[in-house]
Amino acid sequence: MRLLSYFLLLAFGGTVSVTAVGEPSREFAVHSIGWVKKAQGKTTIVLDKKYQPGLHGLDGFSHVYVLYWFDRNDNPEKRSVLQVHPRGNKQNPLTGVFATRSPARPNLIALSLCKIIEIKDNVIEIENIDALPDTPVLDLKPFIPQFESKNAVVPEWLSRGT
Amino acid sequence: MRLLSYFLLLAFGGTVSVTAVGEPSREFAVHSIGWVKKAQGKTTIVLDKKYQPGLHGLDGFSHVYVLYWFDRNDNPEKRSVLQVHPRGNKQNPLTGVFATRSPARPNLIALSLCKIIEIKDNVIEIENIDALPDTPVLDLKPFIPQFESKNAVVPEWLSRGT
Repeated sequence: MRLLSYFLLLAFGGTVSVTAVGEPSREFAVHSIGWVKKAQGKTTIVLDKKYQPGLHGLDGFSHVYVLYWFDRNDNPEKRSVLQVHPRGNKQNPLTGVFATRSPARPNLIALSLCKIIEIKDNVIEIENIDALPDTPVLDLKPFIPQFESKNAVVPEWLSRGT
Repeated sequence: MRLLSYFLLLAFGGTVSVTAVGEPSREFAVHSIGWVKKAQGKTTIVLDKKYQPGLHGLDGFSHVYVLYWFDRNDNPEKRSVLQVHPRGNKQNPLTGVFATRSPARPNLIALSLCKIIEIKDNVIEIENIDALPDTPVLDLKPFIPQFESKNAVVPEWLSRGT
């Protein structure tokens, strides 16, 4: 059965590893499409030139989701962290990484919603982003308010602001 | 100079390819942490057992971002698409993939905001998700309303609903 899964998964183009409990995990490759740049008081996403056609129409949106890679944490230790004290504050309860925005997590994908200031050729100037300079960018997605929830509930530790 | 970049990037653990315009691109590996399951009228995210500690505290949130992989599109053709007619409707203007939620894009990362119904062990029941059954899940992030924008603007084609 495992052998069958293995061949099926290979047929669909993924690579296969087997987790501790015997469930197959699949691996996929992502690559940078551009970079976070910070200079002269400006924050920009500089896309590789070849991806510039992908920006067409983004100027109709005020906000963009930026998906990027926590590349400074790309090691087995940081990728095996499953629980943290949010914001590094021991007063905050030990919490699963999937219930936080922790930069240490199994897949180092970061998500930030950013206000667009200007788009020129392959460069998007944004208001701000909580990412280090030269961070690899993986994807951009438009922010569509009706996809988002207006009636969301969050835990108490989040309302304390530390 | 390119050689220097090459060695620097290798030192930081990425693999390197060079784009058409000579800028180095970096590649990273992501792996499934679980799967989208649909059965008996229920939609669930079934996490691999070993990641269950990462869910601790997610029950304090009403909504979760699910990041998953458009695995049915994982081929060079779909990953080279840079412009589409949104929702496959030719009446919608040809638009860059980074200005749409198109499932054909350079990195096949999908993002959906989902309402949590119940969390039990390694299984999260959600209200709904626009993903096919057995889709690989890459990450979960809590939805935090104050990170989101209340004053967002979108293009005209989005208000038409088709």
